[in-house]
Amino acid sequence: MRIVVLAGGIGGARFLRGLRRAVPDADITVVGNTGDDIHLFGLKVCPDLDTVMYTLGGGIDEERGWGRADESFRVKEELAAYGVGPEWFGLGDRDFATHIVRTQMLDAGFPLSAVTEALCDRWRPGVRLIPMTDDRVETHVAVESDGERKAIHFQEYWVRLRASVTAEAIVPVGAEHAKPAPGVLEAVAEADVVLLPPSNPVVSIGTILAVPGVREAVAGADAPVIGLSPIVGGAPVRGMADKVLAAVGVEATAAAVAEHYGADLLDGWLVDAVDADHVDRVEAAGIPCRAVPLMMTDVEATAAMAREALALAREVRPA
Amino acid sequence: MRIVVLAGGIGGARFLRGLRRAVPDADITVVGNTGDDIHLFGLKVCPDLDTVMYTLGGGIDEERGWGRADESFRVKEELAAYGVGPEWFGLGDRDFATHIVRTQMLDAGFPLSAVTEALCDRWRPGVRLIPMTDDRVETHVAVESDGERKAIHFQEYWVRLRASVTAEAIVPVGAEHAKPAPGVLEAVAEADVVLLPPSNPVVSIGTILAVPGVREAVAGADAPVIGLSPIVGGAPVRGMADKVLAAVGVEATAAAVAEHYGADLLDGWLVDAVDADHVDRVEAAGIPCRAVPLMMTDVEATAAMAREALALAREVRPA
Repeated sequence: MRIVVLAGGIGGARFLRGLRRAVPDADITVVGNTGDDIHLFGLKVCPDLDTVMYTLGGGIDEERGWGRADESFRVKEELAAYGVGPEWFGLGDRDFATHIVRTQMLDAGFPLSAVTEALCDRWRPGVRLIPMTDDRVETHVAVESDGERKAIHFQEYWVRLRASVTAEAIVPVGAEHAKPAPGVLEAVAEADVVLLPPSNPVVSIGTILAVPGVREAVAGADAPVIGLSPIVGGAPVRGMADKVLAAVGVEATAAAVAEHYGADLLDGWLVDAVDADHVDRVEAAGIPCRAVPLMMTDVEATAAMAREALALAREVRPA
Repeated sequence: MRIVVLAGGIGGARFLRGLRRAVPDADITVVGNTGDDIHLFGLKVCPDLDTVMYTLGGGIDEERGWGRADESFRVKEELAAYGVGPEWFGLGDRDFATHIVRTQMLDAGFPLSAVTEALCDRWRPGVRLIPMTDDRVETHVAVESDGERKAIHFQEYWVRLRASVTAEAIVPVGAEHAKPAPGVLEAVAEADVVLLPPSNPVVSIGTILAVPGVREAVAGADAPVIGLSPIVGGAPVRGMADKVLAAVGVEATAAAVAEHYGADLLDGWLVDAVDADHVDRVEAAGIPCRAVPLMMTDVEATAAMAREALALAREVRPA
């Protein structure tokens, strides 16, 4: 079975771990979000790709959900001693090595997709991880600060400000000129199922879909496209997805997110059991919907979610 | 008193610490060797400048003589886990921060001299540290390997091969087109004394003198130029200076090094007490010479060496 998953960071990575448990023999291609990539200290940092790579490769810090296990922060402390920041972004010593290797390869002319493949040679994540694009896309957030409207990098909004100011717009800068990375459209076209994990629908999956050709490919795929709601009981399971949903005028409910993706994209939608009352609304929008437990409390619970998604896929599009 | 010192790495840095002790109120300008600079992992590493900066700024690893105190090597271990080397060059985590800041500033367009000044803002070495040039100069060593003559980077010869193969030539690549960094010639012209510490006469001080205009400025300076022999009893006090002296056809003796610098450059030369029998030969070459203890066993012994050098300066060129 060939499965394509569009993945952001922590949520996507944890879902993928469950999916691998559920279907260990499946051929899984992960299209990773690169809109939250950032240049720090002259280095190219790809937080979402790394979170997927570290999580599936056994190198993740389980507690934080990002960065390396058994991490130290000596390089960052020294940079701060030089007065060089930003201090609000957590880059650990072991993590630095990844960004150094990546930057060196990019400077040598390799595209990000080739660099990601090389990094995965070490991590062996058990999936094929492809960035959504080799082109530079950077998600910016329009905020009002001191009466002035300005655009800041998504990481500044998310990590430094903890989404504490109102996001008035989310703009994946560069997306309109980006091309899908080699292999992305092919994987979608050949997939038996496409899954949208409970990742952020705006700044993770939304950014991937904003790369010209990707949304069209997913919507037009032969394979059923099944999504899992990142909103449970009217609030994000983790993170601050409600803040960026508000910026695009979508209420933070399981049903509203399904409608936001749209019936043209989704062939099925899973909401959490506590949101069973949303099923009718989603189905009224033309999207088959089931209510099942959607809390990724551990790998087995997550595997059960993946099984439900695959079961819904078979139901809506029998082989 | 205005003093200019041409300095390599460990020997130069330790001498400078003694000089500061000897004349705490002196205005000291250090012209640092950059011929052993190397690009590693996409970062610009300046071993000699950093050794001077860390040593005088209190950040040096005293035992090794290079790199940072209380150092760890996690970034390097991770790079090795990616299969990215070289493994033979010791870059610690705290040290990495220096190279990251330097590379970021260079990429932003600042010349190395401005970058060095910025780094010294943190370290406050108590001297003005200027790289010999803002241009790229890289010392290469011609060696014979498997019957083939090839040029390798000085660091590969020195650190990886531990000077175990015969150096047939030492070439400061790029030196002939380099310009002295801003302030170098001015400092020499305004100096009351110019000191050549017991640094490597070929790959440290020799490289500085190879930058067009520097040797001429030092030789033609109003100030007396006093050198201290890095060779004691026919062997280098530390390091492997004898290997590179052989490459330029100079025997590893205190007198031969003085003759190599030449009477046009030197106004005085200090040899170690054990080399007292070299004094006549040096003076016969037209260079006033004294035999005094030249072992930098601690800061006070080194300060005594500096005082001897300054005394000889006064003697050969009374105010």
